[in-house]
Amino acid sequence: MQGQRIDVVSVKPYPVFLGARLEELGDYLTTRIGAGEHLLVITHPNVGDYYLDTLQKGLGSFMVNTLIVPQGEDEKSLDRLSDLTSEAIACGADRKTVVLALGGGVIGDLAGFFASVFMRGMRYVQIPTTLLAMVDSSIGGKVAVNHAAGKNLLGDFYPPLAVWTDFSTLETLPWEEMLNGLAETIKHAVIADEELLSFIEKHQEEIMARKPELYKELSSRSSAVKVRLVSEDETEQGKRMFLNYGHSFGHALEAEVAYQGITHGQGVSIGMVAAAHLAQERGLMSSGEVERLIKLLKGFGLPVTVRAKNPRVLTDLMGADKKNYKGQKVLVLPKGIGQGIVIRDANDEEILRAWDKVIE
Amino acid sequence: MQGQRIDVVSVKPYPVFLGARLEELGDYLTTRIGAGEHLLVITHPNVGDYYLDTLQKGLGSFMVNTLIVPQGEDEKSLDRLSDLTSEAIACGADRKTVVLALGGGVIGDLAGFFASVFMRGMRYVQIPTTLLAMVDSSIGGKVAVNHAAGKNLLGDFYPPLAVWTDFSTLETLPWEEMLNGLAETIKHAVIADEELLSFIEKHQEEIMARKPELYKELSSRSSAVKVRLVSEDETEQGKRMFLNYGHSFGHALEAEVAYQGITHGQGVSIGMVAAAHLAQERGLMSSGEVERLIKLLKGFGLPVTVRAKNPRVLTDLMGADKKNYKGQKVLVLPKGIGQGIVIRDANDEEILRAWDKVIE
Repeated sequence: MQGQRIDVVSVKPYPVFLGARLEELGDYLTTRIGAGEHLLVITHPNVGDYYLDTLQKGLGSFMVNTLIVPQGEDEKSLDRLSDLTSEAIACGADRKTVVLALGGGVIGDLAGFFASVFMRGMRYVQIPTTLLAMVDSSIGGKVAVNHAAGKNLLGDFYPPLAVWTDFSTLETLPWEEMLNGLAETIKHAVIADEELLSFIEKHQEEIMARKPELYKELSSRSSAVKVRLVSEDETEQGKRMFLNYGHSFGHALEAEVAYQGITHGQGVSIGMVAAAHLAQERGLMSSGEVERLIKLLKGFGLPVTVRAKNPRVLTDLMGADKKNYKGQKVLVLPKGIGQGIVIRDANDEEILRAWDKVIE
Repeated sequence: MQGQRIDVVSVKPYPVFLGARLEELGDYLTTRIGAGEHLLVITHPNVGDYYLDTLQKGLGSFMVNTLIVPQGEDEKSLDRLSDLTSEAIACGADRKTVVLALGGGVIGDLAGFFASVFMRGMRYVQIPTTLLAMVDSSIGGKVAVNHAAGKNLLGDFYPPLAVWTDFSTLETLPWEEMLNGLAETIKHAVIADEELLSFIEKHQEEIMARKPELYKELSSRSSAVKVRLVSEDETEQGKRMFLNYGHSFGHALEAEVAYQGITHGQGVSIGMVAAAHLAQERGLMSSGEVERLIKLLKGFGLPVTVRAKNPRVLTDLMGADKKNYKGQKVLVLPKGIGQGIVIRDANDEEILRAWDKVIE
């Protein structure tokens, strides 16, 4: 293999292969689980059209079934989990079957959760095909479906057998999807890797021009941040919480419009700016550092403000965050550039002032 | 506490308290998780009527909400899981909330699975109120819901914080429910504890007369077998499979009538006899040992044969067992009395002959 391997520390450690090739996964699986096993590929129609043939090239010695899940965040549901269960049984799946989650965050979260509960758990491989999934959701073993009462409300910490990242799948990714991943990459830089932020600033134009070499570098560095944080704290008691930077504010923006009309990357972008303003008020960031962040986000066309919102409504929506404890909002703030901090004493007044800074 | 404590070896070890008192659980929880935490009691209407007041006596220093789940195996469903999720959010539950599963196997499996996936996992305590739950389902961390495609098809291995067993709850248990537990107790004896079998034989009349002291002894010994087997093999790769003795045949009988009109205990009873016949054919049991088992089951009024069934249909139904591997049926057989064995080479002909022995 040409790429790079990073190992994630976990109750069940697993490797992340960066710059792997889809058609070589079969060889790896033969050494890892043995030939002849039953594989269940779970993917979206368009991702399947692009990449199933390439993937299958390497899987000749396995029994392979494919389950196609329609596009969209709505598919991360108990209903879809139930459908996958029926389909898997119809294919003869058992607890030795290995699931291959080929797609972005929706597929990874849904197929991973399905793998975690079907017959009390089967093995699965994350094969991320979006930048967001590569640098963020495929690493760390968090899997989930949504529920009317909250996003990702039902799920598990369930480490995959491996993460298999082929950067060439980014070539077909729409720019809007790329931006979702860039927002998370910038998040990783702000909370844990100042050098990564400088790298992004320096190469912003080439990134916008979608030069493949840049994405390799960017994705590898960003994935490394995620691997480091989840290795230190698998079940999110400490440092892993830093990864929620921008997300408490961002999820409120997404929830307020029922996840329609705003992308995750846009929500996180505005959320990072709001949290940065709160950090500045607390003396954790300088105005120059906040401006540096805003300039970078704007440069990519990511929003840093939002129109005509009611800050009180948004603040209340932040009350549903899974991190919260006994009604107290738990927030992640940047500490300068390159470090994060978790605060458990945020009051609604300072949160409202932070919202005011990003509402036009 | 007057009772006995056994510790289960597990990724997350936990204690089983046998002969504890419902009203003392609060004291234990105070030392274990601290006072003031949010508790979510999940129970059935009738169990709640009998025991909620007693349980709540000890929970004065906690914030307590109660969710009532209707009676019946049908409630072990994704739909009920979804309802519990909405209700838990409405009560302000978060990932620090502790679930108390007060009831029999349905409540333990459902509430345990809910605890395993809500916000990616909260803590829970098993409080079994049936003999079946005390000796079997509350121990070992197996949680699940049913699915149209199979019983217990979606679930997890998710160890509880503790198992809190108050034998006095058996006083209100219908005899039919008691028989479900006795069938599992006899199963434990056959596969792992010959002395327990002798004990049951010796005290059969007192057990039928429902003498409380007998149930303490019976339940403690039977629980100990379960603790030992799951401690040796938490995720069911080896010895824990012995606990499936009688269940491959039994589940087929239950599935054939869609779990209506036959109790779990009845299914297991006939299933144990069928598997014993197969064991005898393979020279693993003597005819005397098979007769000994049949006599004991009959003595309790448990069935050892079934009427007017098609053995071919039942054999096909055994093909859906979670233990099976690549279409090969995996069976547990007794090896004499007091030991079990897993066989992976059973052919349909000998399975059909075993069915013939129990079909009238």
